[in-house]
Amino acid sequence: MHEEYREQEQGSPGSDYRLVAGTDGGQTKTVTVLADLRGRCLGAGFSGPANHITEPGGPERCRRAVREALEGAWRDASRGRREGGMLEDFLVAAAYGMSGGNDAMASIIRSEIRASRGVFVYHDSFTAWMAALAGRPGIVVIGGTGSVAYARNHAGEEAATGGWGHLMGDEGSGYWVAFQALSAATRAQDGRGPATLLVEELPAVVGKRDLSELHGWIYSAAGRPQYAGLAAAVGRAAARGDRVALDLLATAGQHLADLAVTVARKLTWEEKPVLISYVGGLFNSGDPLLSSFRARIEQALGNEARVVAPRLHPVGGALLLALRAAGIEPGEQVLDQLEVTLPRVLERRQAQNPAAAGHS
Amino acid sequence: MHEEYREQEQGSPGSDYRLVAGTDGGQTKTVTVLADLRGRCLGAGFSGPANHITEPGGPERCRRAVREALEGAWRDASRGRREGGMLEDFLVAAAYGMSGGNDAMASIIRSEIRASRGVFVYHDSFTAWMAALAGRPGIVVIGGTGSVAYARNHAGEEAATGGWGHLMGDEGSGYWVAFQALSAATRAQDGRGPATLLVEELPAVVGKRDLSELHGWIYSAAGRPQYAGLAAAVGRAAARGDRVALDLLATAGQHLADLAVTVARKLTWEEKPVLISYVGGLFNSGDPLLSSFRARIEQALGNEARVVAPRLHPVGGALLLALRAAGIEPGEQVLDQLEVTLPRVLERRQAQNPAAAGHS
Repeated sequence: MHEEYREQEQGSPGSDYRLVAGTDGGQTKTVTVLADLRGRCLGAGFSGPANHITEPGGPERCRRAVREALEGAWRDASRGRREGGMLEDFLVAAAYGMSGGNDAMASIIRSEIRASRGVFVYHDSFTAWMAALAGRPGIVVIGGTGSVAYARNHAGEEAATGGWGHLMGDEGSGYWVAFQALSAATRAQDGRGPATLLVEELPAVVGKRDLSELHGWIYSAAGRPQYAGLAAAVGRAAARGDRVALDLLATAGQHLADLAVTVARKLTWEEKPVLISYVGGLFNSGDPLLSSFRARIEQALGNEARVVAPRLHPVGGALLLALRAAGIEPGEQVLDQLEVTLPRVLERRQAQNPAAAGHS
Repeated sequence: MHEEYREQEQGSPGSDYRLVAGTDGGQTKTVTVLADLRGRCLGAGFSGPANHITEPGGPERCRRAVREALEGAWRDASRGRREGGMLEDFLVAAAYGMSGGNDAMASIIRSEIRASRGVFVYHDSFTAWMAALAGRPGIVVIGGTGSVAYARNHAGEEAATGGWGHLMGDEGSGYWVAFQALSAATRAQDGRGPATLLVEELPAVVGKRDLSELHGWIYSAAGRPQYAGLAAAVGRAAARGDRVALDLLATAGQHLADLAVTVARKLTWEEKPVLISYVGGLFNSGDPLLSSFRARIEQALGNEARVVAPRLHPVGGALLLALRAAGIEPGEQVLDQLEVTLPRVLERRQAQNPAAAGHS
């Protein structure tokens, strides 16, 4: 589909080639995708995390990360194009959904990126909600490095629950699951707790031989996102039938459901059932987590709520917002385009650069 | 008793005034106590943590901390003495029990401190065991910022369990209890979990008004020991009958008991029951923790083990080792002296300098 489109465009170089950029800036990486005004995704670029701006060198890192991801997406979108041109000549609007987004980050991004109709910076809960529900009223639960639920009703009223960070909560997040999994594994290793495959899966997931080697890595090399990434071992152990891992995923699912249930009660809802969707690496852990998530929500809210799969990858939420800023109110046709082309460009680029995959 | 002694000594200045120094170097502070060769404690000094030697500036901080604590103890022991003299003229032996003790730390300490019969550096699990059981075979469970169990049998064989650190385990430690307590409090605040007094006790214990103010402190100012110190709020909430806090202390007690049970099984024991003692701030949380600790051990080991209160403060273990290095094999008389005079000097000094108290 993308090839087709490029052929068409080359007939009328420049004038019609208008683009929007959407970015998802997480604790692990920054992803930018360029799309045309019909929602066809043309290229993706990746860079490191942009959200640590309070750390030494953080603002410069943020600046570099957003620039790099956009340039990567532009190179990707331009591959095979015969005419040149600068991205700035084509970019109509750019929307950023940033983990830990704040005013300082927004002004860094706006000073670095140029788009004719503007550059817009949002908190990533909002863009994740936009992506998962395509702008329909409802709730999104984010189970990434941290955990939080964000809700928005018909009146545009917002509410959030959770998001206390790794030292005060974030139950059901990658960090929390990794913490519980390491506790279970070390207890098993010592003979203080039930045996579990986590003793081998946790080291394996980062290429270590055993818990002692993992110990060295955790206390010297691993940052918070890398530590949270250890949660992937739980899905692997659960897939092998490990009882400890299965129970842990079920508990994580319940915690994530509790976020949704609590935030659902904070707003009034014109239509029922309230839609509840989800996003983030934890929800890729497999069925045990998702089914306990569904069961807990059903138990608490019955027919008042309905769990729906997310419609778009989080970066799609930023693309929808950029399209809106470009004057396009995205209808079903645009959504369909995004739904088909967004996973395609992301997967293609991740296959080229496996390091760009992973926990978000 | 100390006053009496000083009067006697002043009759024969110098010659008989021989001292040993014992030090307990934890993650929060360093405590040094000076005693005479009969086990009478004469003075105490405090300083900051000495164990962060792998951090930038760490070796210098370690050097300063051990020096400061010893000088403080010497000033304290010398108060009211008419003749002067240098500590070095009187110090026969010094023993250090250091959290995270390693060779680098030992050589820093030995290059900084001088004593005629030598300066000895041990891991603090060993000095804590020596203090709690006065050198008798058995087990000590340490529930401080971290958690670990250390065992030593009649043959001098050693074993340890736990001690994986705050990111991999340390169940039942101050860090772990604080983590669980904060999770319970934020869930209660959000309406995701049962109501608990922890919502007010956690901020109060560090002079904050609410969980939002506490959030700011935790993510900007609090180091690991300060964070672990939040565990004190759990004892306070439990004392007010809070169910969540009571359950958490019971769970912590079980985890600490599991450390003891596991390490007990690693060694052979000539005499039964095996003595199991304990030390560290968590065990000051009150009865709910200690009774669940006892119950779990009894359930697992029955008459094979017996829980006994620690005989001396951990710094007493270092004093016993220093006395031994000075050629004194400490008998019951020396132990009795330490038992009476050690709490006295520590409490007097802590009353002078409340900041020196707190979680160890």
